[in-house]
Amino acid sequence: MRTLIKNGRIVTAGDFFQGSISIEDGVIQEIGCDISGSFDYEIDAAGKLVMPGGVDVHTHFNLHTGSAVARDDFFAGTVAAACGGTTCVVDHMGFGPAGCSLFHQLRVYYEYAKEHAVIDYSFHGVIQHVNSDILAQLEDMLVQEGIASFKQYMTYDYRLPEADILRLMEKVKTIGGILTIHAENHEIIEYLKDRFIREGDTAPIYHALSRPDYCEADAVNRVISLAAAVGNVPLYIVHLTSALGLKHVISARASGQTVYSETCPQYLLLNEECYNQELDEGLKYILSPPLRKKRDSEALWEGIRLGHIQVIATDHCPFTIALDKQKGRGDFSKCPNGLPGVEERIPLMFSEGVMKGRFSINKMVELCAANPAKIFGMYPKKGALLPGSDGDIVILDPDKEVTLTQSMLHSNADYTAYEGFKLRGYPVMTLSRGEVIVQNNEFIGQKGRGKFVKRQGFSEQQTII
Amino acid sequence: MRTLIKNGRIVTAGDFFQGSISIEDGVIQEIGCDISGSFDYEIDAAGKLVMPGGVDVHTHFNLHTGSAVARDDFFAGTVAAACGGTTCVVDHMGFGPAGCSLFHQLRVYYEYAKEHAVIDYSFHGVIQHVNSDILAQLEDMLVQEGIASFKQYMTYDYRLPEADILRLMEKVKTIGGILTIHAENHEIIEYLKDRFIREGDTAPIYHALSRPDYCEADAVNRVISLAAAVGNVPLYIVHLTSALGLKHVISARASGQTVYSETCPQYLLLNEECYNQELDEGLKYILSPPLRKKRDSEALWEGIRLGHIQVIATDHCPFTIALDKQKGRGDFSKCPNGLPGVEERIPLMFSEGVMKGRFSINKMVELCAANPAKIFGMYPKKGALLPGSDGDIVILDPDKEVTLTQSMLHSNADYTAYEGFKLRGYPVMTLSRGEVIVQNNEFIGQKGRGKFVKRQGFSEQQTII
Amino acid sequence: MRTLIKNGRIVTAGDFFQGSISIEDGVIQEIGCDISGSFDYEIDAAGKLVMPGGVDVHTHFNLHTGSAVARDDFFAGTVAAACGGTTCVVDHMGFGPAGCSLFHQLRVYYEYAKEHAVIDYSFHGVIQHVNSDILAQLEDMLVQEGIASFKQYMTYDYRLPEADILRLMEKVKTIGGILTIHAENHEIIEYLKDRFIREGDTAPIYHALSRPDYCEADAVNRVISLAAAVGNVPLYIVHLTSALGLKHVISARASGQTVYSETCPQYLLLNEECYNQELDEGLKYILSPPLRKKRDSEALWEGIRLGHIQVIATDHCPFTIALDKQKGRGDFSKCPNGLPGVEERIPLMFSEGVMKGRFSINKMVELCAANPAKIFGMYPKKGALLPGSDGDIVILDPDKEVTLTQSMLHSNADYTAYEGFKLRGYPVMTLSRGEVIVQNNEFIGQKGRGKFVKRQGFSEQQTII
Amino acid sequence: MRTLIKNGRIVTAGDFFQGSISIEDGVIQEIGCDISGSFDYEIDAAGKLVMPGGVDVHTHFNLHTGSAVARDDFFAGTVAAACGGTTCVVDHMGFGPAGCSLFHQLRVYYEYAKEHAVIDYSFHGVIQHVNSDILAQLEDMLVQEGIASFKQYMTYDYRLPEADILRLMEKVKTIGGILTIHAENHEIIEYLKDRFIREGDTAPIYHALSRPDYCEADAVNRVISLAAAVGNVPLYIVHLTSALGLKHVISARASGQTVYSETCPQYLLLNEECYNQELDEGLKYILSPPLRKKRDSEALWEGIRLGHIQVIATDHCPFTIALDKQKGRGDFSKCPNGLPGVEERIPLMFSEGVMKGRFSINKMVELCAANPAKIFGMYPKKGALLPGSDGDIVILDPDKEVTLTQSMLHSNADYTAYEGFKLRGYPVMTLSRGEVIVQNNEFIGQKGRGKFVKRQGFSEQQTII
Repeated sequence: MRTLIKNGRIVTAGDFFQGSISIEDGVIQEIGCDISGSFDYEIDAAGKLVMPGGVDVHTHFNLHTGSAVARDDFFAGTVAAACGGTTCVVDHMGFGPAGCSLFHQLRVYYEYAKEHAVIDYSFHGVIQHVNSDILAQLEDMLVQEGIASFKQYMTYDYRLPEADILRLMEKVKTIGGILTIHAENHEIIEYLKDRFIREGDTAPIYHALSRPDYCEADAVNRVISLAAAVGNVPLYIVHLTSALGLKHVISARASGQTVYSETCPQYLLLNEECYNQELDEGLKYILSPPLRKKRDSEALWEGIRLGHIQVIATDHCPFTIALDKQKGRGDFSKCPNGLPGVEERIPLMFSEGVMKGRFSINKMVELCAANPAKIFGMYPKKGALLPGSDGDIVILDPDKEVTLTQSMLHSNADYTAYEGFKLRGYPVMTLSRGEVIVQNNEFIGQKGRGKFVKRQGFSEQQTII
Repeated sequence: MRTLIKNGRIVTAGDFFQGSISIEDGVIQEIGCDISGSFDYEIDAAGKLVMPGGVDVHTHFNLHTGSAVARDDFFAGTVAAACGGTTCVVDHMGFGPAGCSLFHQLRVYYEYAKEHAVIDYSFHGVIQHVNSDILAQLEDMLVQEGIASFKQYMTYDYRLPEADILRLMEKVKTIGGILTIHAENHEIIEYLKDRFIREGDTAPIYHALSRPDYCEADAVNRVISLAAAVGNVPLYIVHLTSALGLKHVISARASGQTVYSETCPQYLLLNEECYNQELDEGLKYILSPPLRKKRDSEALWEGIRLGHIQVIATDHCPFTIALDKQKGRGDFSKCPNGLPGVEERIPLMFSEGVMKGRFSINKMVELCAANPAKIFGMYPKKGALLPGSDGDIVILDPDKEVTLTQSMLHSNADYTAYEGFKLRGYPVMTLSRGEVIVQNNEFIGQKGRGKFVKRQGFSEQQTII
Repeated sequence: MRTLIKNGRIVTAGDFFQGSISIEDGVIQEIGCDISGSFDYEIDAAGKLVMPGGVDVHTHFNLHTGSAVARDDFFAGTVAAACGGTTCVVDHMGFGPAGCSLFHQLRVYYEYAKEHAVIDYSFHGVIQHVNSDILAQLEDMLVQEGIASFKQYMTYDYRLPEADILRLMEKVKTIGGILTIHAENHEIIEYLKDRFIREGDTAPIYHALSRPDYCEADAVNRVISLAAAVGNVPLYIVHLTSALGLKHVISARASGQTVYSETCPQYLLLNEECYNQELDEGLKYILSPPLRKKRDSEALWEGIRLGHIQVIATDHCPFTIALDKQKGRGDFSKCPNGLPGVEERIPLMFSEGVMKGRFSINKMVELCAANPAKIFGMYPKKGALLPGSDGDIVILDPDKEVTLTQSMLHSNADYTAYEGFKLRGYPVMTLSRGEVIVQNNEFIGQKGRGKFVKRQGFSEQQTII
Repeated sequence: MRTLIKNGRIVTAGDFFQGSISIEDGVIQEIGCDISGSFDYEIDAAGKLVMPGGVDVHTHFNLHTGSAVARDDFFAGTVAAACGGTTCVVDHMGFGPAGCSLFHQLRVYYEYAKEHAVIDYSFHGVIQHVNSDILAQLEDMLVQEGIASFKQYMTYDYRLPEADILRLMEKVKTIGGILTIHAENHEIIEYLKDRFIREGDTAPIYHALSRPDYCEADAVNRVISLAAAVGNVPLYIVHLTSALGLKHVISARASGQTVYSETCPQYLLLNEECYNQELDEGLKYILSPPLRKKRDSEALWEGIRLGHIQVIATDHCPFTIALDKQKGRGDFSKCPNGLPGVEERIPLMFSEGVMKGRFSINKMVELCAANPAKIFGMYPKKGALLPGSDGDIVILDPDKEVTLTQSMLHSNADYTAYEGFKLRGYPVMTLSRGEVIVQNNEFIGQKGRGKFVKRQGFSEQQTII
């Protein structure tokens, strides 16, 4: 099976040029001016942009929270991803039963994904307690299963005490992995949440007020301090939202620590004004960390431009406003936390980022594909258009104008946080390992065709970002 | 009893002028050009500087640490203070037995001071656990005893969990007090200390390396974040040492939080090179937080100049090198922590601060007398030369040249950390409530003449700094 | 002639206390609890604040600009000052005829002030060209006449080329004076002004747009760089308005340069929105530098708090909107530049600064009286309440509520920029050298009673700020 | 003529992968895993890095300064460049006769290069005066000759007054070009130089002291302010050297201005200690701006990492120490300014940058090839390895160990500033348009084979950096 994409303007993290790409058996063979030979399938990308398929390293498919289950399983979720130009996800495993082995959740998630996912996928390990068994399993996970990243929460029931974080960091460093962190100060949240609820302040805006910027920033700073003590453990701060938190990241990087950070479209494009709308509207935006002030968004855009933030992911975690989110009526703290977004990411970042001059199109590829693939050990198989890379490609029409609306999207959520956004540029075709799986916003592939990606350890990276 | 000080150059936090001061029954009556009337005692201060006596709000007399007892009791310690130009101390009460009432230690300290202290004194409350009884006692301490400040440790056995700190802060805010904080991240210290000892790194320098700047900075930032959650509780960071910690203080103050900070002469004038001397020499400087790098000292001097640091105190906690400090041979973590310094403060700050042009003489009065008195509810009784103020005065000869050496000092420690420092300017007379108690470096007052000072709450302050 | 002020709460740059002040022959004799003796005049200040009279070091009485003459001469201007609680001004001499000696303008200004001024005064020298004669005269001005400060413009016709600024700085440094600077980049202003006028953009807002923040900041940075080359010449930046300019000041001070800066109430309390009102309203606010954005004001307030800005003056330069300002109809560049303000300063800073918690009352005395007196060589004669100081005192009723309006003010301008401001606290009595000259907002002194103040050189300062 | 490079590890600004490159008639045809077909020339790059040839946008071949002529003409200079892995230069035209047309120097430089250069080249226009003719010629230069960048000096005889800079900027903006700036404050240099010479301070270190960091920073800030007034004219600061100057660049970029900056290996790897060696040694390092302090170098490395500095060039301007530099004996100001460096750049940046972990190898390609090509309108013809790009390639052996020494280099200078540097990694082959011109450090191409590159305007850039 040989495919040719020709006449397109090819975009990678570093380059932008007119050319052709040939793919054979799912793998890119050549990049050329004019590639000769015979092909089973030829795609004329004239006037279009040909980019590495998106890599979204922060999704929550199938997630069971205490109060609700995320509405997208690995089928619905990956179809939505593919339709939005994303060809690979790294999903965050949810917590397992108390005391369970690291492999417990991995087995659960293998089941979730197998026969469902339509694009390639991996998982981040989740650390919910620390002991010598768990620490031994970390290495097994990496060596045997190619799970190269592990997530640690600083809030929620399974947050780790600092002494355990230190032990965990030592191990992650030794095995050459990377630690991802949900950074919010648990005690501040509990204190404020209790106070607000006690005082009858239950509206959605109090969700935001109970998780202020300094609550995030304090946790970011702390995890950075702990990593410094252990000696430069690679850190990856998920969903960074605040100017204050970013300041700590910048300072740590300047002093030589390996700290990456991720933000999400919602933190760049929406802000806490959303919570002050009528109740049903406000509930839609309950997610953690919450939306911030406009000046935080501006700081994030600048952080991206200056290279302090390396990844844009989504934290896709879809609920319905009709049912799930209603639990937050009368008490914001009961509302399931999360937003859909896996499908909107690439279109939003192209339209709001590139077309509005906030960053270059190369930067967009870096943020949405190359960097996440590199940091999480999948490059150049994923996130690149190189000979030897998987034929994971999105073709985007830069002139297509679209007004975002729920009905055109593929998530099982019943709303999009970006309803009515007028976009310029939209994906028109998605290829996964050389196969066209989305055409004109319609998924035309096979359910379950996605494959698990065994990843390399962070220390195997050939290049630093 | 009427005393007149005439012909001197009077220095206060705001002014510098030629004038006379009359004192009656221990209290200043008038400030004038030429004060007429008859006096029991006339002091001709021609060519001398007449300044408010020093207020040292960070001493540890009588302190029982686990492994040793600070060598100065309230007699020796206050004599040393007086000889160095300090006329008032606020001592940090040590920890009491587990679970004890707040008043337990107060009673112990009343005993320590009574019949011993030669200058006026107060104590900072110490919070070693939090429950509703303790919280109720906080208010009693302030209202009944005039104990307006409470200290909380973020390391050591009696450190408080964050949830307790939040409760404590709420109470301190309600009663109008101020919280003082020893800010170091406990887990980082334990982790590094264990690692170093395990690896045989036991020399004094490892004391410093086990308490790095980010260990302090993390705790500073955290306590600031907690205070922000409660809503601007007044904080006072004791013995700030690092550029990194200072950065957090600056940022909090810029955003409107009430955060004061104190540094000490040792952090301004000495640095971690001290630990790399021969063992006996290195042990002398084991104190917590440890001495830092030269660039930290520079940041502190600048922090003082720009008003980010408001107080210079001493953390006076004297041990002998002959005996006490020897416990650190072979294991830095066994060495009692602390330095003497209550006597050296005023001479050092005059000579190294004022005479070297690092700050003005008014700033020196502010840092060493007026500000600590204001922050801790003793102004204008202490820290000022105003009609109505106590006649606590130090007369300093700006031209007197002194080479600091242990034998001239009055602490029971057997060394000074500033041996050999060449000073220009030295106190030549100290008055406490109008009585000359030190003349030419000799204490001539009565043992036990010092009185407890009942302080006002922070919220009673008439003016903000 | 002996006067006693008793029962007041006395405020100085450093202190705040209950006490009495005795004045004899215009000079303060004593500060005491209870001063005995007989007095010609006793003032009961119970419930009032007793503060050093304001020192305004930036006024333009009698100023002849090209197109108009400032409406207040030294009589009207100093009466307004006195009614607003200011007891000393340092007026900026205007430019003289091309090539004139430094003394030319001094003689003109002696004439302006003599027999007119009702409070004490001095002048800043103005440097409109540089040659060896002028440089020699600088020293004569300081030694013979006590003119200790010299102003240099970086815009307008008499701006100096950089090479001349360097020569001037060398001389000012040698004689121990201080250089004051109007810092705006001339070429940028000319370029933008021409462009706007050419394009028909003539409304008042274009006045602001033609003098953007970076135009000020560039000039501030340049003069600081030049001073660094000469070797730390003392600089005083007049009317600093922008966050960007302040950044350069902060950076220079941090690196050890002696740079003071002044801002004015208009830059703290008003912003560029004023220019977008109807034409007549907009013209009122045409002054240079122009009003800035709200975020600049916030940066200035913070700069004050952190000690980066040392002085609040007024740049008082009154015109009428009925006549003078009309010249700006149809062309902002034809409008005389300036605002009245000498009378509003103290009330505004008390009400908006102290009462709104932006700074302490001590800080207010520092900014409005002590610091300007110190920097410009008049302390402790002016700016202080000390034995030996002139009896220049303002008594302020902190509870008096006033709505500012033109009719209550004493300038010949026909408007106030602060019309309708609701103030809490207002001066109720002003004394100049012990004589009550304003009572209940009415001037009751003698025309021409003000005296010229011979100032000391900056290098004679006994203390650094 | 078809060439194949196979088995190499290919490095571009964004990617790093194993692959092959085919070149036909000087132009890259394909990038592939395994490229089939027949080739005239096959290069086995196993174990080697295959990178875009270096683009050095700051050289001074043939330069006539007042006192000396740079020792490398376009033959010697480009041979040195090629041997060091650089395949394209943009040379800075020197000043022409007073009042000359813009085209005068272009014709002179066409002559210099033609029949001499061995790699491709272009020139930066030089603006030595401004009038309407010159402004008209700017557009002609760009449209007719592809000269897309123009240099303006802020010091030296041909510096432009600010009003002219503003006019020039307007024009550059209109035509879509970019302005390059030598940023040093002329008056400060003259003032300090005169003072030092007058006082007998003639040693090389005074060269550095006469051009302090604030002298550069002031000029950087000024040109940025002027560009802001005109409205975001693209600026390119050549040879940025100081932390202080960088601060202004960062601030401007953060506020949205298009400001690029370049630094050079000497500012990263050498510092002002060099001037304190014996006289002959010190003279070698006389260049402008001068070498700075170590902390400046550190700031530059960080500036590179964080993307504030986009280009590393050389400012290659070679003189001999035996003859030329001797003019500086007894008077630093008589010494010709400049260093050789065109050959050392790529090896130094690989060894000191990549191998020491200061930046990634992709970043190195970005800094030394892709970014300069993009900024100056030659991408993707130069600076990239893409189908359609010129076959300008350097093959580097990452394991080759070399101790840098003058005898191995090809410049006519008689010294290298990096004598004795131990390098790891060195270029082993250079191709220009598909032709191997350097092999094992020997030039094997034809004199005069280099071609002039017609560049595109800055506004034609397809992507922003």
